[in-house]
Amino acid sequence: MTASIDTGVSEELLAEGRRAYELDREHVFHSWQAQGPFKPMTIVKTEGSFVWDGEGRKLIDLSSQLVNTNIGHQHPKVVEAIQEQAAQICTIAPQHVNAARSEAARLIAERTPGDLNHIFFTNGGADAVEHAVRMARLHTGRQKVLSAYRSYHGGTQLAVNITGDPRRFDSDYSSEGVVHFMPAYTYRSYFGSETPEQETERALRHLEDMITLEGPRNIAALILESVPGTAGIYAPPPGYLEGVRELTAKYGIVYIADEVMAGFGRTGTWFAVENFNVTPDLMTFAKGVNSGYVPLGGVAISDAIFETFRDRVYQGGLTYSGHPLASAAAVATINAMEDEGMVANAQRLGRDIIGPRLQEMKAKHPSIGDVRGLGCFWAIELVKNAETKEPMAAYGGSSPEMNELVGAIKAAGVLPFANFNRIHVVPALNISDELLIQALDVIDEALTITDGYVTA
Amino acid sequence: MTASIDTGVSEELLAEGRRAYELDREHVFHSWQAQGPFKPMTIVKTEGSFVWDGEGRKLIDLSSQLVNTNIGHQHPKVVEAIQEQAAQICTIAPQHVNAARSEAARLIAERTPGDLNHIFFTNGGADAVEHAVRMARLHTGRQKVLSAYRSYHGGTQLAVNITGDPRRFDSDYSSEGVVHFMPAYTYRSYFGSETPEQETERALRHLEDMITLEGPRNIAALILESVPGTAGIYAPPPGYLEGVRELTAKYGIVYIADEVMAGFGRTGTWFAVENFNVTPDLMTFAKGVNSGYVPLGGVAISDAIFETFRDRVYQGGLTYSGHPLASAAAVATINAMEDEGMVANAQRLGRDIIGPRLQEMKAKHPSIGDVRGLGCFWAIELVKNAETKEPMAAYGGSSPEMNELVGAIKAAGVLPFANFNRIHVVPALNISDELLIQALDVIDEALTITDGYVTA
Repeated sequence: MTASIDTGVSEELLAEGRRAYELDREHVFHSWQAQGPFKPMTIVKTEGSFVWDGEGRKLIDLSSQLVNTNIGHQHPKVVEAIQEQAAQICTIAPQHVNAARSEAARLIAERTPGDLNHIFFTNGGADAVEHAVRMARLHTGRQKVLSAYRSYHGGTQLAVNITGDPRRFDSDYSSEGVVHFMPAYTYRSYFGSETPEQETERALRHLEDMITLEGPRNIAALILESVPGTAGIYAPPPGYLEGVRELTAKYGIVYIADEVMAGFGRTGTWFAVENFNVTPDLMTFAKGVNSGYVPLGGVAISDAIFETFRDRVYQGGLTYSGHPLASAAAVATINAMEDEGMVANAQRLGRDIIGPRLQEMKAKHPSIGDVRGLGCFWAIELVKNAETKEPMAAYGGSSPEMNELVGAIKAAGVLPFANFNRIHVVPALNISDELLIQALDVIDEALTITDGYVTA
Repeated sequence: MTASIDTGVSEELLAEGRRAYELDREHVFHSWQAQGPFKPMTIVKTEGSFVWDGEGRKLIDLSSQLVNTNIGHQHPKVVEAIQEQAAQICTIAPQHVNAARSEAARLIAERTPGDLNHIFFTNGGADAVEHAVRMARLHTGRQKVLSAYRSYHGGTQLAVNITGDPRRFDSDYSSEGVVHFMPAYTYRSYFGSETPEQETERALRHLEDMITLEGPRNIAALILESVPGTAGIYAPPPGYLEGVRELTAKYGIVYIADEVMAGFGRTGTWFAVENFNVTPDLMTFAKGVNSGYVPLGGVAISDAIFETFRDRVYQGGLTYSGHPLASAAAVATINAMEDEGMVANAQRLGRDIIGPRLQEMKAKHPSIGDVRGLGCFWAIELVKNAETKEPMAAYGGSSPEMNELVGAIKAAGVLPFANFNRIHVVPALNISDELLIQALDVIDEALTITDGYVTA
C-alpha cells in the first residue's frame, strides 16, 4: 500500500496549503521543536479517520493528532453544535452562569466515578494539572507533590516539573516541591521484577518508602496518569492503582488521577480508573472531553475537597474557564459518544482487533520487544535485542532506524504516533474495523525495517 | 435609568437560564470564589455592547466581560468565520501546518512593533506568560524574574507568583525565582513623588537599585504590563517604559511586555507599548486577539530570541498551540478591527468622550480620588478622603460602600468592572457614542452613593 494522491482535493486548497507552509516557516514558532531545521507536514483537510497532506495525499490518522480526536475529525454533530453555539453566545466571563457550561459540567459529573461531582474548567491539560495541585495544596496545607518518572503532565512550569520525561530537563530548577518516584512498569522493571504481581508489590513498597522518607505530613498530592500515555502506554499491573489509592488515603495525601489522555473512552471505559476500580480525589481531563475541537480541560473535584472551598475563596481562575463554545463542543461530543456507543466500541476494537493483531505481530517481528494496551490505547515497543531490551532509539531521543520506520509508515498512507523507540496505535474510537485493519497491515509490513536492525 | 426587562427574550431562553443556574450551583466550580455563598448572574443572551441577564434584563456591558470582548459580543463577521472554520478543520496537532494558524501569525506579526516577528500560540494569557518566561530563561541561561507589585499575570503557578496582587498570596512558596519591585504609580507613589516626572525618575532609580542588589547576571527577565490592567489601569508616567527598556538592555535582561489585557486596540493603538515608543523582546497577548470568542493567547518573539531556538529545541508546547478555530477567530477579529477602524475609534472614545467626562465627574464627586486611562481603558479610583486618599475598599478587599455602588450601577442597567476601590470603564472599542454616554451617565449618578461616605 502507498499513500495515494486524492484527486478530489481542489487545486485551490493545495495552493492555500502551500501559502500556509510559507507563512508558517516565516511566522509560526512551534512546540517542542528546533525552529530552523523543522519541516512540518501541511494538513489541508480532515474527515473521520482521514487527513490529507499538502500534496493531497490521503492518510489514515492512527495518531488521533496528539491522542485527542477520540471521535475522529469533523464529526458532523459536534461541528453543528459549535456552529449553533457560535450563533448564540461565543464567550462569557467565568463568573456568569452559562447554559452550555452548566450542561457540560452535568454530563461530565454524571460520568466521573464516585463523588467527583464538581467540575472546574480550564483551557487544557496543563492548567488542569496546575489547578489540581493548587487545590490539593490548599486542601491539605502541605506543599510537596509526588509524581512518577516516565510520565507527562503538561507544558507550563509546574506541570512540566511534575512531568517525569526529558521534556522537563530544560526547565527543572528543583524548586517546585516535586519529588519523583519509580513507576510500576513491568517490561523494564526498576525493581528487577519478573512478573506483574512482583512489580505491583515492589512498586508499592517503593512508593511507601518514598512517602516515609519524604515525610507524609509534607506531601500534598500524588499525581499519576491512570494509564501513562506518551511515556509509553504502560497500564499499571493488577492491584497497583488500588494500592496507590490505599497508601494516599492512609497518609492523607490527595490522589490526583491525570486522565488528560486516558480519559473519555480512550481505554474502553469513560475514565481509565474504572478499569482498576479506584476513585481518586481529583481527576484532570482535556483532549477527549471534546476531542480538542475547541480548547478545553478541567478538574473533577470530590465532595470533600469541594467542602474546603465552600466558604474559603479558591485562589485560582482564568478568563476562559467554562468557555461556552468549548463547553458546547463537550456536550455534543459526550452525547455523540453515548449515542453511537463509542466507548464500548473502543473496548471491542482493543479486545478483538488491536490486541490480538499486535500479539500476532510480536510473535513474527523480532524487533517488537513488547506490546501492551487496552481499548484504543496501545504501544509497540521496539528493541534491537529481545534479551537485553536495547531500545531502537535511546530514552529521550530518536534514531535513524525509528525515522526510517516512521517514514515508511507515512509513505504507506498511515499517520502514526511515535515516541522514542515506540509506535503507538491510538486511533479514533469510532474508526471502522476495515480501516483499522488496513492501518495495522501497514505497520506490520513496515516492521520488517526494524527487524533488519535486530542484532541478536 | 433602571434596567428594563426585555420582553423580546423568549420564555424558553429564560427557562434554559433557570435550569443552567441550578446545574451551575450543583456542578460548576468557579474561578476566584468561595463556592458556597456565591450567587452568580446568569447571562442568556449577548449582542454588541449588550448582555441579557437571567430575568431578561438588558444591560450595557461596560466590563467587556474580563476586558476581552474588544469587538463587542457576537460580531457577525467573527461568528461567521468560526462557523466556516468549524465546517473545514476544527483541530489539528501543533506540529502540522494549518492555514488559519499561519494567517493569524502573519496578521499579528505585521502589527507587533519592531522585530517581534515570530508567534508562539498558547490557550490564554497565563500560559503565554509561562512560556515567555521559559524562553527568557533558556535564552539568557539565568533564572530570576523581576515583576512589579500591583500587577496581574495569570492564574497558573508561575504566572500567579509573578503576579503582584493578593491573588498570589495563597500560592506563594517563594520558590519560583520571582522578585517583586515597586511600580511607577503616581497617584499613590511608593517613592513620595509629587509629579509624574519625579515618579519616573525615582521608580527607575529604584528599579536599577533592585537589579544591582539582586545581581544582574542572575536575572533572566523583567515582566511588566505596558498599562497595568485589573491592578488599576495606571499608565506609566512619561519616560518610565523607555527607562525600563534602557535598563533591561543595559543588563542583558529580557524585557517581556505583558499585553494580555492592554493589547489589541484597548489603549487606542494596536499594542500599548506603541504609546511609549518602546519595543520589548517578548510580548504576551490573549483576550483581544480574538475577543475571547475561542480561547487563544500567545507570545510574540524577537528575531534575537528566535535565533536561540533556531537549532536548539524549544522545550515547551501544548496540544492546542495554534488551534485552527481559535486562529480563524483571530484572523476575522483583526480584519474586522482593521476594516471598521476600531483601534482609532478606541483612541477617539478615550480622548473625546471618556476622558473629558471622567474629569468632569472628578470635579463634581468628592469620592473620586483619581481618574486615569487612555483609549477604552480607564479607572475611577474611589476614596473616603481626598487628602489621605483612604480607599473606599481596602487593598485586596471589598466594602459595603463599593458593593452598594456596584449594585446601583447594575440596577440602573450597566454591567461594570469593579476591583477593590475602583470602577473600570472598559467598553468594547466599537461601542456607540450614545450607549457609552448613557453608561457614563449611570456611573455619574451612582457616584452620589460613594460621595455620601466621604469623611472630609
